[in-house]
Amino acid sequence: MTEEQPASEAPFSPSPEVLAGDTSDIYFLRTHRVMELEGINPRVTMEFFPSGDGILCGMKEVLALLGQVLPSDAEVWALEEGERFRLKEVALRVIAPYLSFGVYETAILGILAHESGWATAARECVEAAEGVPIVSFGARHVHPAVAAAMEYAAIVGGGVSCATPVGARLAGVTPSGTMPHAMMLCFGDTVRATLAFDKHMPPEVPRIVLVDTFHDEPEEALQVAKALGDRLYGVRLDTPGERGGVTPDLVIEARVRLDQAGFQHVKLVVSGGLTPTRIRQFLEAGAPVDSFGVGSYISGARPVDFTADIKEVEGKPVAKRGRIPGIIANPRLHRAI
Amino acid sequence: MTEEQPASEAPFSPSPEVLAGDTSDIYFLRTHRVMELEGINPRVTMEFFPSGDGILCGMKEVLALLGQVLPSDAEVWALEEGERFRLKEVALRVIAPYLSFGVYETAILGILAHESGWATAARECVEAAEGVPIVSFGARHVHPAVAAAMEYAAIVGGGVSCATPVGARLAGVTPSGTMPHAMMLCFGDTVRATLAFDKHMPPEVPRIVLVDTFHDEPEEALQVAKALGDRLYGVRLDTPGERGGVTPDLVIEARVRLDQAGFQHVKLVVSGGLTPTRIRQFLEAGAPVDSFGVGSYISGARPVDFTADIKEVEGKPVAKRGRIPGIIANPRLHRAI
Amino acid sequence: MTEEQPASEAPFSPSPEVLAGDTSDIYFLRTHRVMELEGINPRVTMEFFPSGDGILCGMKEVLALLGQVLPSDAEVWALEEGERFRLKEVALRVIAPYLSFGVYETAILGILAHESGWATAARECVEAAEGVPIVSFGARHVHPAVAAAMEYAAIVGGGVSCATPVGARLAGVTPSGTMPHAMMLCFGDTVRATLAFDKHMPPEVPRIVLVDTFHDEPEEALQVAKALGDRLYGVRLDTPGERGGVTPDLVIEARVRLDQAGFQHVKLVVSGGLTPTRIRQFLEAGAPVDSFGVGSYISGARPVDFTADIKEVEGKPVAKRGRIPGIIANPRLHRAI
Amino acid sequence: MTEEQPASEAPFSPSPEVLAGDTSDIYFLRTHRVMELEGINPRVTMEFFPSGDGILCGMKEVLALLGQVLPSDAEVWALEEGERFRLKEVALRVIAPYLSFGVYETAILGILAHESGWATAARECVEAAEGVPIVSFGARHVHPAVAAAMEYAAIVGGGVSCATPVGARLAGVTPSGTMPHAMMLCFGDTVRATLAFDKHMPPEVPRIVLVDTFHDEPEEALQVAKALGDRLYGVRLDTPGERGGVTPDLVIEARVRLDQAGFQHVKLVVSGGLTPTRIRQFLEAGAPVDSFGVGSYISGARPVDFTADIKEVEGKPVAKRGRIPGIIANPRLHRAI
Amino acid sequence: MTEEQPASEAPFSPSPEVLAGDTSDIYFLRTHRVMELEGINPRVTMEFFPSGDGILCGMKEVLALLGQVLPSDAEVWALEEGERFRLKEVALRVIAPYLSFGVYETAILGILAHESGWATAARECVEAAEGVPIVSFGARHVHPAVAAAMEYAAIVGGGVSCATPVGARLAGVTPSGTMPHAMMLCFGDTVRATLAFDKHMPPEVPRIVLVDTFHDEPEEALQVAKALGDRLYGVRLDTPGERGGVTPDLVIEARVRLDQAGFQHVKLVVSGGLTPTRIRQFLEAGAPVDSFGVGSYISGARPVDFTADIKEVEGKPVAKRGRIPGIIANPRLHRAI
Amino acid sequence: MTEEQPASEAPFSPSPEVLAGDTSDIYFLRTHRVMELEGINPRVTMEFFPSGDGILCGMKEVLALLGQVLPSDAEVWALEEGERFRLKEVALRVIAPYLSFGVYETAILGILAHESGWATAARECVEAAEGVPIVSFGARHVHPAVAAAMEYAAIVGGGVSCATPVGARLAGVTPSGTMPHAMMLCFGDTVRATLAFDKHMPPEVPRIVLVDTFHDEPEEALQVAKALGDRLYGVRLDTPGERGGVTPDLVIEARVRLDQAGFQHVKLVVSGGLTPTRIRQFLEAGAPVDSFGVGSYISGARPVDFTADIKEVEGKPVAKRGRIPGIIANPRLHRAI
Repeated sequence: MTEEQPASEAPFSPSPEVLAGDTSDIYFLRTHRVMELEGINPRVTMEFFPSGDGILCGMKEVLALLGQVLPSDAEVWALEEGERFRLKEVALRVIAPYLSFGVYETAILGILAHESGWATAARECVEAAEGVPIVSFGARHVHPAVAAAMEYAAIVGGGVSCATPVGARLAGVTPSGTMPHAMMLCFGDTVRATLAFDKHMPPEVPRIVLVDTFHDEPEEALQVAKALGDRLYGVRLDTPGERGGVTPDLVIEARVRLDQAGFQHVKLVVSGGLTPTRIRQFLEAGAPVDSFGVGSYISGARPVDFTADIKEVEGKPVAKRGRIPGIIANPRLHRAI
Repeated sequence: MTEEQPASEAPFSPSPEVLAGDTSDIYFLRTHRVMELEGINPRVTMEFFPSGDGILCGMKEVLALLGQVLPSDAEVWALEEGERFRLKEVALRVIAPYLSFGVYETAILGILAHESGWATAARECVEAAEGVPIVSFGARHVHPAVAAAMEYAAIVGGGVSCATPVGARLAGVTPSGTMPHAMMLCFGDTVRATLAFDKHMPPEVPRIVLVDTFHDEPEEALQVAKALGDRLYGVRLDTPGERGGVTPDLVIEARVRLDQAGFQHVKLVVSGGLTPTRIRQFLEAGAPVDSFGVGSYISGARPVDFTADIKEVEGKPVAKRGRIPGIIANPRLHRAI
Repeated sequence: MTEEQPASEAPFSPSPEVLAGDTSDIYFLRTHRVMELEGINPRVTMEFFPSGDGILCGMKEVLALLGQVLPSDAEVWALEEGERFRLKEVALRVIAPYLSFGVYETAILGILAHESGWATAARECVEAAEGVPIVSFGARHVHPAVAAAMEYAAIVGGGVSCATPVGARLAGVTPSGTMPHAMMLCFGDTVRATLAFDKHMPPEVPRIVLVDTFHDEPEEALQVAKALGDRLYGVRLDTPGERGGVTPDLVIEARVRLDQAGFQHVKLVVSGGLTPTRIRQFLEAGAPVDSFGVGSYISGARPVDFTADIKEVEGKPVAKRGRIPGIIANPRLHRAI
Repeated sequence: MTEEQPASEAPFSPSPEVLAGDTSDIYFLRTHRVMELEGINPRVTMEFFPSGDGILCGMKEVLALLGQVLPSDAEVWALEEGERFRLKEVALRVIAPYLSFGVYETAILGILAHESGWATAARECVEAAEGVPIVSFGARHVHPAVAAAMEYAAIVGGGVSCATPVGARLAGVTPSGTMPHAMMLCFGDTVRATLAFDKHMPPEVPRIVLVDTFHDEPEEALQVAKALGDRLYGVRLDTPGERGGVTPDLVIEARVRLDQAGFQHVKLVVSGGLTPTRIRQFLEAGAPVDSFGVGSYISGARPVDFTADIKEVEGKPVAKRGRIPGIIANPRLHRAI
Repeated sequence: MTEEQPASEAPFSPSPEVLAGDTSDIYFLRTHRVMELEGINPRVTMEFFPSGDGILCGMKEVLALLGQVLPSDAEVWALEEGERFRLKEVALRVIAPYLSFGVYETAILGILAHESGWATAARECVEAAEGVPIVSFGARHVHPAVAAAMEYAAIVGGGVSCATPVGARLAGVTPSGTMPHAMMLCFGDTVRATLAFDKHMPPEVPRIVLVDTFHDEPEEALQVAKALGDRLYGVRLDTPGERGGVTPDLVIEARVRLDQAGFQHVKLVVSGGLTPTRIRQFLEAGAPVDSFGVGSYISGARPVDFTADIKEVEGKPVAKRGRIPGIIANPRLHRAI
Repeated sequence: MTEEQPASEAPFSPSPEVLAGDTSDIYFLRTHRVMELEGINPRVTMEFFPSGDGILCGMKEVLALLGQVLPSDAEVWALEEGERFRLKEVALRVIAPYLSFGVYETAILGILAHESGWATAARECVEAAEGVPIVSFGARHVHPAVAAAMEYAAIVGGGVSCATPVGARLAGVTPSGTMPHAMMLCFGDTVRATLAFDKHMPPEVPRIVLVDTFHDEPEEALQVAKALGDRLYGVRLDTPGERGGVTPDLVIEARVRLDQAGFQHVKLVVSGGLTPTRIRQFLEAGAPVDSFGVGSYISGARPVDFTADIKEVEGKPVAKRGRIPGIIANPRLHRAI
């Protein structure tokens, strides 16, 4: 086990299962077979649009998939990864023979919906934090198969770092971590664990110590500050809900007590149930937080659902009942393929 | 491309990335290294409990992971896949040397949280539907990397079927599908598309035709019923929100108009933005729905977050501040490893 | 039966029943008899004021009544028909011997209350519609004995037309209508009914066809547009609540589909449960409505109740407990009789 | 002017304007002409149903109209005047050639809607009053052309009497009244007005004196009780809103003060802004009210809208989109014509 | 300074200021003078009743006052101290010459209102606590001139003890206290302060130590438990709001950690912003609280206002407008003087 | 009994009970004894701050207490009586040996909390009244032992006068009163009582007559105005809730009726359940009130709780957990001792 992160090549290339249509709704597979047998394969224009406002994420992965499957005369127009989109704004337009890509509708919608959901939630935190860095700590709330995609999206949404190697690699950042409660409990003493951590970790790993395991937070903070001195980069406050959670007053008090003891250099990292609302409460109360670790608000965010509509068949405007036939102009789209 | 589903062997075996700790929060990897170098590896008891009530899902996958990494003297106690759990009830207890499994805390929590979230949402729909079958149609709202896990969870939660081959295979069911709007638009005519579908599909695939693409739903339903006669299994109503969505009155009217024309055998499948509340409204209004296709309510459900606590170190009760030292008894646990 | 509307003479002259006091509260008749027998008949000042803000309607009818019964030395001051009034503002002041008009208090209050209620509701729709014409379609919600008064008030409130000959005559406008569902059902086909209507109606009657009886609205609209071509003036959308009612999206879609087929000249009339709130929703959603047909919001409006108070007896300020003795000045009043 | 009420013959016979179709929506007149010229006149079944629960009123008037216009082979089924109906329950079914009655759809719906609205509101008051009599005092809030219909409906809804001769005659009851503020102010003294009333009114008119014009209500009540003694039937409390309106405590106090002075026989009539909620408050507070005079809650009630649907043409089930073809069975209907 | 509490004689005897009328509204003094000079002094019946439900307190003090001022032929009827009363129920009836007691109306009402307010609030806490003792800790929120009356009322309302000597003496209980933060801070160490307290306090004072000053509460609790052993009676948790306040989870955790270390005998006292709602939350969460210290909910309670009405003058029923003349029977009254 | 108010000397000097520590929480007495016996008496800095915004009252009384007990080298900093304070702003800082003043923490907090509560409520009324004078009438809602303190606080908060001699003396104002219902009922007639009052009261007592006892308020007002003429200073309206309370309309009507009868000089005093909200309603409705008599809104106001914290011990910053060690600077403090 190692935390090295080799450069990832073609990080967004589609999995064999996706390419095989195995993750598609089966009716697309059946449609494919019927149309093939009937010899029907019109050139269609399909538009993809979201069910709400948000931050676009997943487009790189979608374009990688389309790049592998579309014929050379296909045309693809798209918004950029990380752009803000509006409700019902066309974010992707594909013009190609239907059979070349129709079966991937499920996968394309799923990638855009899930990743845009995470990126949008991250952006809400980033905006609430008004410049204080946000780190994604929420891999523990999602299936590991999407841990990388989730953390990548958190960074597209504006996070500065994330906790898993797999996510950091995809996003091209250095992973970020402090120390877990489990380590403190195994060592039986926060200062002892801290000294061991300091002894074995390479110098580029910042020493950020969790200080709520055994003693009152400011007390434990002072103990590790005294033990590590200038080598201590920061402390993390993660008071559990059973104790009222981290409060702005606790952050202020910890800051003052550290400062009064001469530890002005020690940073304060806050985590535990953070949401944009709670982040705003810390800032409004003047709590001197140096970084927020956000978990389930980002990783548990609902997807921003996308819909795909065929709007032209062989150049002729069409639409199912309830939709406007023909393309919906969007000057922000750029030619992507 | 094919919809054959070969029997899946060891369907829950962990991916190399998970085993390598690549999807773990990096502080667990660092803790591992420090403890190893310090020669510290106590036998600990770790308990996993949820942040709310719900339906347990993911335990099989978790046990498959633990089975690969734990030494032979380890002990694991767990609730069963699909069981109902209560807020803070211990769902999993692992007793083993910390270094043998500590690094997988992220993955274990993520699997349980994400899959239990989906299974719980599915159960809510199933309970609302009072016996009318629920089918999972929501793969388009999640990343394809978790499409299988999501659909598996929907079925653990009580769904009767799902739409993707990969999900159906994992859950051991036959995938279920009707016909998409794209097919109707490519054919340019619902009846034409239906006849082609009927011609090419094997007999065991039920003919369920989407009837809201070109004409009023009852009108289009009667057209396909006349065209297919007894071979028509059912029709699907999926009226878009722009037209007010599917209403209970529409279902009743379609039923009466089909019956008056002699098509009592044609089933009615309803889809589009369904939630337990809306499902209940259909039933309360007496709408004769034969099956509900549920999408984002299940697939976009928030995870039911889980937490892991070390409660014993070398047999001695411990806990971080805010938690009760020592194990929390739960007679419903059974020995799993 | 004919829809000719002969010029109405003295349209507001009181009925014999009203003049006989038959529609008065009986205590006014008894008061009249007792005062007559006692020889008491003071010159009084009576003021009439509303219980809320609104649009004045009925004043012409009230003045016609007072003109028939007051002696030559009476004085009447009033606001104008159609003026906006404020809560408790004096709208009518009568100075005359009590016995000459006291018995008509019930009728005067009732005319002003009922008609001002309708006019006020109409004005709310007119203001919500920001220039899109409003037509009164609500005679079916009131007793036919007040159909004329209701439709007259709707036009005083700002409506451009109404549906009944009797109302149109009183208001001096041309009545307005489209085609009812009953006609479509009797003909069994919308196009057939439309062609017959076109054949027999004089050219000045605009061809506005109801297009939701048998088929999807845009589909039926295109059918009648193709059948009538340039002779088609407009179509009416009146989708029932069982189908979600008329939505802004439906109007937009119908417009686009008509335009794409070359029928830009066809107007769109919307009806069905309209209120100021719903009218505003159509405008805010950008739905290109050409005219709104409003029913029960206007015709079922609650009356704006009026109260009458004697404020002077033989020139001396008086008032019952709770009211201010003497007249309440209102410079907006003009001498009416 | 007189309050005699001659027996009314054929009280519900339709007016010439209604019979001429002058109060109909003009599109029915146009439909009539087109169908006549095309020679189309199918035998249809038309059903009329309400938009909510309520008390049926106006059916006698509707049947009088249908009786005049339908051919001898027509069939009419109806609920009874005064029956309770439920949302969407069929209240009237007409089976006849369309041209014989189609043009009266507006009038039939209007009569049922408006009168059922008043009857339903009256019933709510009657139920709230738990046996204490309700008298309709609200003619002043409606146009005199419907004063009779409104008061008739109030009595169908359960009121014991009403204030206008024209309404009382239609309903077959004796009109009811007390004394108005105008009379008190013209006499300048409540006792003087009362003595004059007593002198000139025939013995069968109960002496009910309004006691809030000049003095505190219990004080004025005692003054008239002393003046009239046993001839005093009751007093009316109608305190204006400017003085807080009539309160339950005022009624109790007036009762006690009258009783303590030996006037136990004097009844207490309460009026002024009464609603079912306020009526219930009086009863719950134990206020000994002998009768409630209700005004705008009944007379200003919104109509209970009705809808008419053709459900069979020449015996074949039909319906516009959104409605169920064919009749809706209702065993409570009886054959009316 | 000493905490000895000598038996209080005549604890409720009125102060000279009250007897002099100095605390009365001045218009009673003026009324007294005018009536005296006019020679008017009728025997009146005055009734005192509350503006809401509650627990009666102050009656002993009121009777002590009346006992000093009323002549021998006066009659006083009253409810008992501590009885529950209902809105507007007569709680006190005085029959005496007006001049003998009229001037004390202000004082009588004030005593009953203020003390009943406190007793009622205390009772709400007592009922919420379902048997867990309530101690009054709120003298710091009221002026010291009423500290005794407030704490007396808290005990009449069901509290078991209070914090001030003056209050305990009036209520006949032993005062109750723990240790303040100030003491801990002066000693600079909780254990040192505790040992000094234990050394100097007489054995009958229970050792209840405040354990949130310097360290985490369970940690500090264990430190003092180890220092004092069996002599430790209990610990008090009073976590400030800046740290989330005392939570049910904290109480449970403290209990378990004390029990696991062998200190099952140590009681848990909870204080800090307690209300009936919060007390109920502790019980519902199963927190093993041994006693609640309640402050401002009791001492800051709004008075339950009382009103006094003259209901008879020389035996004749009278009342001001709005009230019922004559006495309001209340069989629960007993003869008190 | 007399209403003379001799100049009060040292009006805020502490009572013997307070000085003896009898009104202190007993744990302060115990702390005192333990520290004395241990020979511990550090010089501490204690800060007092409020739990909300408000108007400071009680500081003079607190300083009088501290002035008696502090040694000569103590330092006291304070805000001024009547100043506005903000949540958590330091209002008082004491620097002295702990044993010299620690025992008075309860009394100091109680004085500030209770009196600031009253003053703050008074200020809210004063601000709502926009210049119309406010008089404190609420002694009847508090225990007579704090009547003086309450009325003093009402005047510090901005009231112009109060009703009790004891309060007026403390605040240095002339007490204010009208006439009570009891007086009217004893005289049996408002005019008779008024004439007696006028005969016996010295000329400097303004004749303000309560006019709602026997008759309608404007009527009774006119009766006393006619009886007293220019000697009548004002009338008080205090209509009970049973009659709807005093309404703005009643005030307006009384004003007009008095003016129309030539009594423009008669002032209108309003009382009865007044709150800032109701005061604002009178002003917004244009009711010409000359003075408001406010009772329980001021006298029943909840205390604004204060907290005391030791922030330095022998010059070293300290604080209990949750508070910031060291003083909190407040430039608005001035040196008071």
